[in-house]
Amino acid sequence: MQTGNQRTDISKAKRDIMQKAADLFAERGFGSVGISEVGEVAGLGKGALYYHINSKEELLYSIMTDYIIQLIAAGHGILETKKDTRSRINALSESFMATMFQSRAAMTVCFREVHSLGAEKRETVLSLHGDYQTIWEQVFEEGAQSGDCRDVSRLETKALLGMYFYSFLWVRVGGRLSSKKIARDFSNIVLAAVMVDRPA
Amino acid sequence: MQTGNQRTDISKAKRDIMQKAADLFAERGFGSVGISEVGEVAGLGKGALYYHINSKEELLYSIMTDYIIQLIAAGHGILETKKDTRSRINALSESFMATMFQSRAAMTVCFREVHSLGAEKRETVLSLHGDYQTIWEQVFEEGAQSGDCRDVSRLETKALLGMYFYSFLWVRVGGRLSSKKIARDFSNIVLAAVMVDRPA
Repeated sequence: MQTGNQRTDISKAKRDIMQKAADLFAERGFGSVGISEVGEVAGLGKGALYYHINSKEELLYSIMTDYIIQLIAAGHGILETKKDTRSRINALSESFMATMFQSRAAMTVCFREVHSLGAEKRETVLSLHGDYQTIWEQVFEEGAQSGDCRDVSRLETKALLGMYFYSFLWVRVGGRLSSKKIARDFSNIVLAAVMVDRPA
Repeated sequence: MQTGNQRTDISKAKRDIMQKAADLFAERGFGSVGISEVGEVAGLGKGALYYHINSKEELLYSIMTDYIIQLIAAGHGILETKKDTRSRINALSESFMATMFQSRAAMTVCFREVHSLGAEKRETVLSLHGDYQTIWEQVFEEGAQSGDCRDVSRLETKALLGMYFYSFLWVRVGGRLSSKKIARDFSNIVLAAVMVDRPA
């Protein structure tokens, strides 16, 4: 499935609804929140709300896909503009943490509620995550070709990405540490694991 | 809170109920499964079921705590019997993966439903996870003292543990790779990240 080029052409109004709904869903669970409550926190009546969204499930789906589509777009940008393995890994790490800091509620909802989606939409969410993984795989493969990395297996790539995706559960957003500092600690672990030379 | 010494003295009958309930909760969500359905899959009437469990919430709590209590007990055993940093990291990695292979449904339930617990029980679950983290911290601290490791920050420990905890979402249990082989790939990443000498 070609999903890598999907664009996030979402209106400001819809993005505002998504953010508020993600906060509600993250706090109380998708099943426990009525669509009228989403309207309330967004300050919209039912008619206005349904002007922006088709259904509660479609809203959930938009929340779950938006951040990963952003990560994929940023990842493609990094592959195009950076050719050095170490810079690519550092940039992917920064991009992930910046997105996580912005989209923590959406990630919470995604990981907790993916089973609430219909089969087809769930497949697309998983496929988008696959597209994101492919970007890291490309970095490691090209790094191995240039002699920067050792061969990194798919299992190792998934393990390292798991470290990133799990972070939304425990990293204190808005705490003492910036997303950049945390991203650097994470990318140092990746660099130590994959680079032929130890990280600087 | 002293939770590290909690024992898992759970009867075979209750463990069987927990396993079947975890499968149901993982598949359909805690909120969507009635207690009578748990009785059905366990082959028990309401009276017999309530002989083993106090409530649906208590059952959820037992499911969420059992695997982490097992991990803590195994971890304490490893700290006592192994003194070498590399052996400890390899053994903790094996212990984690073996438990994950056994308790995947329970982990799914734990991460998806922790918000369904009351505040006190939720605190205990988080505290148990803290106790488990402390074991890895001790390995890294003693490793730094002996000159095996560099100093590993709490953030780095959490990042590395996230790699393990996230694995229940994607590792194929019963697939081509044994838990031991996967554990070795994971511990090699940890060793690369923390050891002063690169892993053998």
